[in-house]
Amino acid sequence: MTTSQFTIDDSQFTIVFAKTRSKIMSNLLRVTVWNEYRHERSDPRVAAVYPDGIHAAIASSLSAAGYAVRTATLDEPEHGLTDAVLAETDVLTWWGHMAHGEVSDEVVARVHQRVLEGMGLVVLHSGHFSKIFKRLMGTSCDLKWREIGERERLWVVAPGHPIVEGIGEYFEIPQEEMYGEFFDIPAPDELVLLSWFQGGEVFRSGCCYHRGQGKIFYFRPGHETYPSYFQPEVQRVIANGVRWAAPVDRPGLAFGHRPEPIEELIEL
Amino acid sequence: MTTSQFTIDDSQFTIVFAKTRSKIMSNLLRVTVWNEYRHERSDPRVAAVYPDGIHAAIASSLSAAGYAVRTATLDEPEHGLTDAVLAETDVLTWWGHMAHGEVSDEVVARVHQRVLEGMGLVVLHSGHFSKIFKRLMGTSCDLKWREIGERERLWVVAPGHPIVEGIGEYFEIPQEEMYGEFFDIPAPDELVLLSWFQGGEVFRSGCCYHRGQGKIFYFRPGHETYPSYFQPEVQRVIANGVRWAAPVDRPGLAFGHRPEPIEELIEL
Amino acid sequence: MTTSQFTIDDSQFTIVFAKTRSKIMSNLLRVTVWNEYRHERSDPRVAAVYPDGIHAAIASSLSAAGYAVRTATLDEPEHGLTDAVLAETDVLTWWGHMAHGEVSDEVVARVHQRVLEGMGLVVLHSGHFSKIFKRLMGTSCDLKWREIGERERLWVVAPGHPIVEGIGEYFEIPQEEMYGEFFDIPAPDELVLLSWFQGGEVFRSGCCYHRGQGKIFYFRPGHETYPSYFQPEVQRVIANGVRWAAPVDRPGLAFGHRPEPIEELIEL
Amino acid sequence: MTTSQFTIDDSQFTIVFAKTRSKIMSNLLRVTVWNEYRHERSDPRVAAVYPDGIHAAIASSLSAAGYAVRTATLDEPEHGLTDAVLAETDVLTWWGHMAHGEVSDEVVARVHQRVLEGMGLVVLHSGHFSKIFKRLMGTSCDLKWREIGERERLWVVAPGHPIVEGIGEYFEIPQEEMYGEFFDIPAPDELVLLSWFQGGEVFRSGCCYHRGQGKIFYFRPGHETYPSYFQPEVQRVIANGVRWAAPVDRPGLAFGHRPEPIEELIEL
Repeated sequence: MTTSQFTIDDSQFTIVFAKTRSKIMSNLLRVTVWNEYRHERSDPRVAAVYPDGIHAAIASSLSAAGYAVRTATLDEPEHGLTDAVLAETDVLTWWGHMAHGEVSDEVVARVHQRVLEGMGLVVLHSGHFSKIFKRLMGTSCDLKWREIGERERLWVVAPGHPIVEGIGEYFEIPQEEMYGEFFDIPAPDELVLLSWFQGGEVFRSGCCYHRGQGKIFYFRPGHETYPSYFQPEVQRVIANGVRWAAPVDRPGLAFGHRPEPIEELIEL
Repeated sequence: MTTSQFTIDDSQFTIVFAKTRSKIMSNLLRVTVWNEYRHERSDPRVAAVYPDGIHAAIASSLSAAGYAVRTATLDEPEHGLTDAVLAETDVLTWWGHMAHGEVSDEVVARVHQRVLEGMGLVVLHSGHFSKIFKRLMGTSCDLKWREIGERERLWVVAPGHPIVEGIGEYFEIPQEEMYGEFFDIPAPDELVLLSWFQGGEVFRSGCCYHRGQGKIFYFRPGHETYPSYFQPEVQRVIANGVRWAAPVDRPGLAFGHRPEPIEELIEL
Repeated sequence: MTTSQFTIDDSQFTIVFAKTRSKIMSNLLRVTVWNEYRHERSDPRVAAVYPDGIHAAIASSLSAAGYAVRTATLDEPEHGLTDAVLAETDVLTWWGHMAHGEVSDEVVARVHQRVLEGMGLVVLHSGHFSKIFKRLMGTSCDLKWREIGERERLWVVAPGHPIVEGIGEYFEIPQEEMYGEFFDIPAPDELVLLSWFQGGEVFRSGCCYHRGQGKIFYFRPGHETYPSYFQPEVQRVIANGVRWAAPVDRPGLAFGHRPEPIEELIEL
Repeated sequence: MTTSQFTIDDSQFTIVFAKTRSKIMSNLLRVTVWNEYRHERSDPRVAAVYPDGIHAAIASSLSAAGYAVRTATLDEPEHGLTDAVLAETDVLTWWGHMAHGEVSDEVVARVHQRVLEGMGLVVLHSGHFSKIFKRLMGTSCDLKWREIGERERLWVVAPGHPIVEGIGEYFEIPQEEMYGEFFDIPAPDELVLLSWFQGGEVFRSGCCYHRGQGKIFYFRPGHETYPSYFQPEVQRVIANGVRWAAPVDRPGLAFGHRPEPIEELIEL
């Protein structure tokens, strides 16, 4: 333990450095970046944007942000999401689109359980329609969409939220797929970003949820044909979202029969 | 249309009676009271309290509140919840406990779809563990419990909410099963009631949710061995909950491809 | 009490008509429409749109909706908001802009107290900067604005909410003042409407709050130079907002010293 | 920048250490502990528990948690909360009780402005009735209370929240003043802790709010005659609350006239 003394404005400070900084903050966050990884291998337009897959782009920016990052994809055994991998994952990010139906129910149940136990989940763009997101939300997660490359402007509506640290009052994505309301999700516990689209729609683009002991962040960009995941603001929001969704260091949840009251009962 | 004129405190009022009162308010709410109806037929202690079934007690108090009430139970064909019945149901109430697993997934999917389309759902007591509630919540819906007949005191924490109209600052149930936190639900959109239990626990006992176009109210009482559904405050909260959960008169939700932008785009 | 019996789909209904319908629903809501009423008397462009004042337009549509409506304006004694008027007001609507500073602190304190006691408050457009709204919100309530007559499109994001009954998935106002985020308000308890503006901004346009025993609805339209309060969708949302904000029939809030515990304490 | 490579479970990790860790996380949080400091100097029972003042106890535990801590008290010039001090304060904690009325309105306005600009605020126990908390909440902040030294048990209801890191499913305080519902506050943005009291009441004891760019945490313990601030769980929650309330690194909020639209308008 290191301490030091100093003075500001006639006040004395004693500093004891960070000895109770949380486990998550003091240690390295372990992030698993999951990607369906199909469009990139079948559609040259997508391959041109993400030659190593969307997961590679996301993983690279999260590594640069200081996290310990691995990737997993649909066509790996168990989609790369074995019990062992999930046990070592603090936060999972999820991108899927054309093959939601191919994700096995068993893996979905496993991820669901881990989220309720505390693993963070960052759901990206078309992941809104993934089995895992729909299961956690309990709604259809449906929306309106259009793919003509219009401009998106994301406005910050929770300016004190850690997910928008480093972000200005808004940022723009030059070309994106449009997602429009009504977006059939539960009202977010914290609504952080709202999108304006050139064609006339709005969208709740940054949505925070607590479920069980876990935290979920939905973030709307980016479509597979646009380089949104190379844009610094998008990268920063995802990196912030990962940190926000990190597990806290607590005992697991306890449920069930408690035959003995904590308090002595005077009368029944 | 009837109008009348009068004056209060030197101000002139013109009254036009209620011509835009909502469809739901002006018409009769149609409520379907669903009950598992097993304990009452197999356990004499339960039969002694609810000789005609828990559904009969609830239906009777909701009829007295002015609603058009029918009942449905697990052992009826399709559990009494056919498409036709659901199509004519504005609000469904749900009580289940020992046979959650026997509710068919098809009926659960049907009820789920109807809730997202706007049907209200009032989930009672052990219905917290029903398939339909877990599906709508996306969490385990697990909790702690104890059955020693302790006293429960329900405190109002949203005093302007229509669900507690007619209710004082708290009300007591002399003997109830204890349900204790952590209750694994999403944070309610509106938290209306908090329970104190003699044995030392607390519980979020009145919880409101919006899901899709529908509204869901979870209300904690009453265990099958206690006459909670005959207690006026419990009846009042359920009746209020039914009215709060009533559908609003709007077009159905619209989703999907919108190839044409609403606005003309200057540049892309 | 009237009862009747009928049968639908082989189920028997017993109907007892509405005898526990809430006081608010069964009786007439008393609405006071408050307006600053200055622009209309000093600016011919505004007078051309609202020759009898904005309050007259709002009062007329609320009367047509079936409420008992009176009006009050800034230049009346006590701004028309005497204790007697407030005591007879179930819901107060508020429009102000150029003279917020002339509203007396005493009247603001009186209205504030009445809201906490249960009176509903519907705050319109530039009322965002009124003393009473800022006092109830606790924030600056500041925003961005522009007055070039651009198009506004209001999207429904809480489709089951009674405030949007009768409203489609969105509605447009041909010309309006722009209000843009960040709007410095607490996150609404229920966010009902989001606005898209032609110039590139978004705005949280329909916001619900519970404060004390009262309910507050903020609704963004309409600027004094545009006929927004004559538009049916705007009128409908305001009428719905009034009903949503109506007081519930409950005892007043109780606070203070409770020297005697409710429960007997075994040990201290 | 340091990087390293390693392998877990056949996956390759690349680690780049923490270069985008947020300013707040990487630097030292500067905390100002404010205390009324009257009871301790006038009441021997209080002096016996907190001989150096409640602020000394809180400051000591926050220093031990690794923050840069200073204190300020009511009877200092400007209550110790000069512009300079506030400018150097990331998070302010507030304890007051018998002398709320002596806090100058000018200082309250200054603190209020700083919170809206991003300074965190942790309000403790009887601080619920402070001018600053009431101003930020917009409600009366009133409650019920009793001082007979009963037991309090605080239950965690948001188990994934960073404010309860290191806390079990509940913790007990052997003797405390009772605070009971209805607590006249806005519904918290995040409700983290619920209290059970021996005498029969419940209370929302850990409440999170976003206001402007700032964050506010209300935490219910501890009464001046009990050593609650020496209890490790209480200290941990306060330390966690300080970190949660820390400002994020963003530009200040921008408001006002935006005469030029961001987007070119096709038609008006």
